[in-house]
Amino acid sequence: MLSDSLAKEFEAIVGKENVFTSEADRQNYSYDSCVWTPCIPGGVVRPTNTEQLGPIIELCYKEGIPMTVRGAGTNLSGGTIPDTTDTIVILTTALNRILEINEEDLYAIVEPGVITAPMAATIASKGLFYPPDPGSMSVSTIGGNVAENSGGLRGLKYGTTKDYVMGMEVYANTGDLVRCGSRCVKCATGYAISPLLVGSEGTLAVTSQVTLKLVPPPKASKAMMALFTDMQSASKAVAAIISAHVVPCTLEFLDHATINYVEDYVKIGLPRDAGAMLLVEVDGHPAQVEDDAAVVEKVLKDCGSTEVVVAKDAEQKKNIWEARRVAIPALARAKPTFMMEDVTVPRSKIPAMIAGLEKIAKDRNVTIATFGHAGDGNLHPGILCDKRDKQEWARVELAVDDLFNLGLELKGTLSGEHGIGLAKKQWLEQETSRGSIMFSRRLRNAFDPKGLFNPEKIVGARG
Amino acid sequence: MLSDSLAKEFEAIVGKENVFTSEADRQNYSYDSCVWTPCIPGGVVRPTNTEQLGPIIELCYKEGIPMTVRGAGTNLSGGTIPDTTDTIVILTTALNRILEINEEDLYAIVEPGVITAPMAATIASKGLFYPPDPGSMSVSTIGGNVAENSGGLRGLKYGTTKDYVMGMEVYANTGDLVRCGSRCVKCATGYAISPLLVGSEGTLAVTSQVTLKLVPPPKASKAMMALFTDMQSASKAVAAIISAHVVPCTLEFLDHATINYVEDYVKIGLPRDAGAMLLVEVDGHPAQVEDDAAVVEKVLKDCGSTEVVVAKDAEQKKNIWEARRVAIPALARAKPTFMMEDVTVPRSKIPAMIAGLEKIAKDRNVTIATFGHAGDGNLHPGILCDKRDKQEWARVELAVDDLFNLGLELKGTLSGEHGIGLAKKQWLEQETSRGSIMFSRRLRNAFDPKGLFNPEKIVGARG
Repeated sequence: MLSDSLAKEFEAIVGKENVFTSEADRQNYSYDSCVWTPCIPGGVVRPTNTEQLGPIIELCYKEGIPMTVRGAGTNLSGGTIPDTTDTIVILTTALNRILEINEEDLYAIVEPGVITAPMAATIASKGLFYPPDPGSMSVSTIGGNVAENSGGLRGLKYGTTKDYVMGMEVYANTGDLVRCGSRCVKCATGYAISPLLVGSEGTLAVTSQVTLKLVPPPKASKAMMALFTDMQSASKAVAAIISAHVVPCTLEFLDHATINYVEDYVKIGLPRDAGAMLLVEVDGHPAQVEDDAAVVEKVLKDCGSTEVVVAKDAEQKKNIWEARRVAIPALARAKPTFMMEDVTVPRSKIPAMIAGLEKIAKDRNVTIATFGHAGDGNLHPGILCDKRDKQEWARVELAVDDLFNLGLELKGTLSGEHGIGLAKKQWLEQETSRGSIMFSRRLRNAFDPKGLFNPEKIVGARG
Repeated sequence: MLSDSLAKEFEAIVGKENVFTSEADRQNYSYDSCVWTPCIPGGVVRPTNTEQLGPIIELCYKEGIPMTVRGAGTNLSGGTIPDTTDTIVILTTALNRILEINEEDLYAIVEPGVITAPMAATIASKGLFYPPDPGSMSVSTIGGNVAENSGGLRGLKYGTTKDYVMGMEVYANTGDLVRCGSRCVKCATGYAISPLLVGSEGTLAVTSQVTLKLVPPPKASKAMMALFTDMQSASKAVAAIISAHVVPCTLEFLDHATINYVEDYVKIGLPRDAGAMLLVEVDGHPAQVEDDAAVVEKVLKDCGSTEVVVAKDAEQKKNIWEARRVAIPALARAKPTFMMEDVTVPRSKIPAMIAGLEKIAKDRNVTIATFGHAGDGNLHPGILCDKRDKQEWARVELAVDDLFNLGLELKGTLSGEHGIGLAKKQWLEQETSRGSIMFSRRLRNAFDPKGLFNPEKIVGARG
C-alpha cells in the first residue's frame, strides 16, 4: 500500500479527493475484463487535468513506483491489471473533454478519458463519422482504444483505431510533454511516433491528448442475415464475398453453439438447428449499396445459404443485428467463466481455422462457441468453462495453446484487436521472430529505462 | 575510398561484379534529386538477394562504416545522399522480385527494389489496385517509398504508403532478420514496428521485404478541370468541395506561374491569364461518380470558376491531366535550379498559405511557382533560381525559412510526402517539440547504437 508520505505527495498534485488508498478502492482496480489473476495496487490516482500527468510520472519515476494507466478497464488481455502491489493506477476517467471537432478539416481533438460511443454520437450530430466501433464502446475510453489499437465490427472496410489517430500528445518518463503527428492528412515529418504509441499498451508513455481523423458518413446502408447448415459453407461465402470485390462495412458470423446460447438468452426465434449465421451490412452511395447487396445476396445463396433475410427498414435491421449484439452477454452468462479469445487469420483461411476449432474442442473436451468479424478473419472463439474446476481449466489451457498454434500455422496473428497484455506474451516470439522481440525490448528500454510503465505487458520491462 | 581489403570482404558477400569503387561509379551515387551538396561515398555494394543484407550490415557494423541504402535516388530531401566519404551505398535495385500477389486475401509481398509503377500495373492486371502514386513512381522503388512514406496524387482519398504497409522484414544492426506486421488486415500483436519503420528514412534498419495491402479498384471515374481568375477563389473551392463531403481521389492545383511555365513547355493552349487551375477526379461506383461530379461542378461554379471542362472520354481525361503531368519538367527546365518544397497545411488553411507564399515571393524577391495536392493541403511551392548566384541563393534560403515558418504558424507540417532527410532538419523541433526530438534520438540510439544507418538524416545519430 502507498505510504502516507507518498500519498501526500500525490495529493499535492491531484488533490486529496483524487487519491484512493482504501482496501475497497484498491480492490476495484485489481482486475480488468480478462480472465486472469487480479493484483491489488498500492493506490489509485485520478488526475483532473492533463498537466497533472507530468508531475505524477516524475514522482513515480523518482520513487521507482510502477504505473498502470486505466480508463474503463474493459481490456481483454490483462493490459490494465496492475503488475505489483506497489503499482499506482492512474485513472483517466476525469480527463474527459472533447477539445475540438473541426468540421472543415475533419478531425477531433480529445482527452484520453473520453468515452468512445458518446464521442462518436457527438461527432455524428455534426454530420461527421468516427468509424471504429469496439464492442465495449459504450463504456471504453479513447485512451484505452488507442493503447490497445481497438478494432470493432467495421474494421473490414474502415480499419481500426490506428487508422484514425493523426497525432498524439503524451508525457514521457521524464515528465516532459511530447507532441507527435499532425492535423494534416498527409505527414512525412520525422519518425512515426504516434503510430508506434498506438497499441503500445501503456508501456512507452502516458497519453494526454489524441487527434482523431473523421470522415464523411456513408449515405446509405443495408443489412442482411443468412443461415447455413454448417460453418464451412458460411466461411466459404465470406471468402466469395471478398473475391467478388465487395467490401461490406460489417461481415459477422455466429456459429451453431453461439446461436443457441443467444436463443437461450433472448428467445427471438433463432433456428436452433442452424449451423452458422452470417450478418452482412454494406454501406456507401445508395446505388452502390443496392448493387453490393444484390451481389452479396447472390453469393450467399450460391454458397448454400438456406435462408437470406434482407432488412427492409430500420426496425428489421435492428432485429437482424440483435443476435450479434447480445452474443457476448449470452455467452458470458452460460458458464461461470467465459474466455473470449481473439485469433485472426487471413480471410481465405477461415474455413481451415473453423474446422480446426471444432477439432480442438473435441480433442480437448472443452466447449467452444465462436463468433466474430469474419470479413477480416478476426475470430472470437469463446471458451465456456469454470475456472475453479482445476481439471477442466487444465484442458482449457491446452485448448488455448492449440488454437494459437493453429492460427499461427495458418499465417494468422495472436490478436486482431485485444492486444497481447499479460495473456498472450508466451506466443509472441513464435508469431514474430527473435529479432522482433529484440526490437520490442529496445523500444521498451529506450522509452522507459526503469521499466515502470505497465512493466510486465507485451515483452515485459526486464529479461 | 573503400580499402582493397574491405572491398574484398564485400566481394565475398555479393560477388566481385557487385562492388563498385571507381571514381565514376562513386560519383554516380553522391547525390539524389534534392538540391543539396553532394558527397562521394567510399564504395557501392549491390546485393543480389536479400540474405546478403545481414552479412553486409554485420561487416559495416564491425568496421564502423556508415551505410546509406538507395533505390532509385529520387529522394527530394537528401535522404539518399551519403553523409561521409567512407559511407557504403547499399543499392537495392537487384532486389526486385514480386514474391506473391494474393488475390484471395488482397496483399502483395515484394522486395525493396521493385519499381512502383510496373508493380502497380502487374497488380492491376490481376484486377486489384495499389493506390499510392508518388510522382516518381515510374522509377522509384517500393523500398524508397516505404523509407520516405511517399504520398502522391491519390493521398486525399486513398492515403499514402503508410496506409498500405501491412508488414515488413528488415535486417537489424546486428545482422539479424526481424519480422513485423502481419498478412491479416487486423493486427494488434505487440509494438507497431512496421508503422515505425515506414518513413524512418533508412535510419533504423534495412528493409528486405514489404507486405502491401491491395484493394478492389474503383469501377468508374470522372475528371474535370476548372479555371479561376485568382488562387484565392480556387482554394476556397477546394475547402467547399471537402465541406460538401465529397472526397475526390485527386484534387490538384496549378497556380498562375505554373500554368505559364507549362504552356511555355508543351503549348497545349492553356489560358495564360488564368490565375489558377484545379484538376479534380472522382472515382467509385458509377452512380456515386455521377453524383460527386455534379456536386463538384456546382461548387466550382459557385466559387467563381470561369470555365469548367468535364472530360467526356479517356482521351479528354488524358488531355486534362497533361498540364499536371508535365508541371515538374516544365518548372525544372525554366531555370538552372528548381527547388521543389513540400509544405502541408490543414485544408482550410490553403487560402492563407497561398496568400502568404505570394507575399514571401514579393518580400524576398524570388520566383515561386506553386502546384500540388490541394485536397490534402500538400503544396509544392517551387522556387526557380540559380544556385550559383550567391545573392539570389541567400534570398532563396530566407524565403524557404519564411515558408516553413508560415506553414507551421498555420498548424501545418514540414513535409507531406518528401521526408525530412538533410534538407529540413533545422525546422523539426519547431514543428514538434523538444520531447519529440528526445523520443526520436532515443529511437535512433535504440536501433542503431553506433549511428551507422544513414547517420545524419532526420535528427542525426549524435548530439
